[in-house]
Amino acid sequence: MSRDPGRRDPSRVADGLVAQVFAGSHQAAARLISLVEDGEREGLEALRTLYPRTGKAYTVGITGPPGAGKSTLVDALTKRIRAAGETVGIIAIDPTSPFTGGALLGDRVRMQDHATDPGVFVRSMATRGHLGGLAPATSDVIHILDALGCAFILIETVGAGQGEVEVVSAADTVIVVTVPGLGDAVQMLKAGIMEIGDLFVVNKADRPEADRAVTEINMMLGLAPERGWRPPALKTVAIGGEGVEEVLAAIRSHRAHLEAAGQLAERRRERRRGEVLHALEAQIREEVLAQARADGTLEAVVEQVADGRLDPHSAAKRLLRGR
Amino acid sequence: MSRDPGRRDPSRVADGLVAQVFAGSHQAAARLISLVEDGEREGLEALRTLYPRTGKAYTVGITGPPGAGKSTLVDALTKRIRAAGETVGIIAIDPTSPFTGGALLGDRVRMQDHATDPGVFVRSMATRGHLGGLAPATSDVIHILDALGCAFILIETVGAGQGEVEVVSAADTVIVVTVPGLGDAVQMLKAGIMEIGDLFVVNKADRPEADRAVTEINMMLGLAPERGWRPPALKTVAIGGEGVEEVLAAIRSHRAHLEAAGQLAERRRERRRGEVLHALEAQIREEVLAQARADGTLEAVVEQVADGRLDPHSAAKRLLRGR
Repeated sequence: MSRDPGRRDPSRVADGLVAQVFAGSHQAAARLISLVEDGEREGLEALRTLYPRTGKAYTVGITGPPGAGKSTLVDALTKRIRAAGETVGIIAIDPTSPFTGGALLGDRVRMQDHATDPGVFVRSMATRGHLGGLAPATSDVIHILDALGCAFILIETVGAGQGEVEVVSAADTVIVVTVPGLGDAVQMLKAGIMEIGDLFVVNKADRPEADRAVTEINMMLGLAPERGWRPPALKTVAIGGEGVEEVLAAIRSHRAHLEAAGQLAERRRERRRGEVLHALEAQIREEVLAQARADGTLEAVVEQVADGRLDPHSAAKRLLRGR
Repeated sequence: MSRDPGRRDPSRVADGLVAQVFAGSHQAAARLISLVEDGEREGLEALRTLYPRTGKAYTVGITGPPGAGKSTLVDALTKRIRAAGETVGIIAIDPTSPFTGGALLGDRVRMQDHATDPGVFVRSMATRGHLGGLAPATSDVIHILDALGCAFILIETVGAGQGEVEVVSAADTVIVVTVPGLGDAVQMLKAGIMEIGDLFVVNKADRPEADRAVTEINMMLGLAPERGWRPPALKTVAIGGEGVEEVLAAIRSHRAHLEAAGQLAERRRERRRGEVLHALEAQIREEVLAQARADGTLEAVVEQVADGRLDPHSAAKRLLRGR
């Protein structure tokens, strides 16, 4: 039926992949994610088919400063969720490193614990964009893991920067992880992550000053406006699994709270709104840049800006109007 | 001459401010920065006038994990630069906190040491955006401080996230600050800040394991591709001023290297290119949001996406074509 039998039919490829993803194929999910990341037409076709049937997975974002043990906590949480008979998708957001030319897998290797478990799907994503780059298609990957049947999707970021916080804060439950002695709560506040936490975890709590860290978090939270949910501050030693059951219980409590208050639907509506705006911006940018590159305007304008003949705002206006 | 004599003439306001900034008025610079941050027309007019006459200041970006002592180092560096008879502009990038409703000034208060020194200009900037938010007009502020006559502009970030790294990595010299025991170099690598450093500083070097931190940094740097400049790893106790003179000397060496190799002009050209792309993104976002709010299409489309009747990419396409 394809009009060009020499090429694969994007719709047919997409339909095939979607069916396999819904049937639980990890391989198909991995392939679909790659297609979406690369902006391939098949990927977008597949998302269109898949999208209406998603929304079952519960998403948990995990953020915090480097070295807080986020990966270890995700690993420990995964074990608990699996022990409860539920499936898990893990999205690990890594900065792209020019040193390695791709996502830094580092301790993700440890994740291979779960490699043979069909109930766990792990994906590392590089935060590819730098200059002007938006976070890549994390929300698309969430939908794919949702279609794959993951009951929980854990989204872990490496840093606690603006881009990462943005991705994580769109989750249903947001966990902020810290460790004793990493700096006081004021430092966390300064990093802008205090206000997005639904749940705080002081990891490596066998270190001195763990209780002080908890107290500080509670004090900072006391300054926050009342939101109907008082974020708990829990202690874990994730590497030994201590306190992790309590974290999972707190996630479930938070979920129950959101559902009872009708806030889960509201949060998700906000998230979808953000997805639309992101997609819109990406499409416009692509269109403008493709045009400007094709006709040489981009380089010409950059040249003028570099020479000081034009300021960047006027240059941007020219590019945007030149479409 | 204004066509609307009841309102101030943006061009006249802009010209007046620009003249005052070039004459060295801190007050005019502060006012101009606020106008630019608020996206006021006068601000953009002023930037257009001012832009061709900038490019004299040397910019230094300072990044690293929270608690590493970046502010203290900036403070100590400022004292040294002033002692050498040169002027300093400081841009401190803070995340916006919904708790406080603005930039978190925190220990910036300490900066008031310099408040009476006409050779130092300090500005805190909030990283306002969250969902899809870009770093605000840091590059515009750089140009304003350049016009003000600052010989050095120090740009300090609070976090080490993508957005911050992006801003700082556009500087002529990038300093990555860490402290002993904050986590090993692998953590820094993971945070994506290892590869942007022209200069590494292990602060609080009176703590144990300072030498180990230096060794680790040097080892990681040994893995990097040769770039003609081997980033030094220096030890400081910024609060007591120890090692800070060496940091300033290393900045000057790096500058000399860049100039000799013709790389300074190249870096700045790249930076201006980035400024154009940033401005473009900002204008696209503004246009998209204005459009969507004005005609109600956005909400209608978001509704369909929330209901699962439409996927975000198709929704974006519809909004884009609907213009």
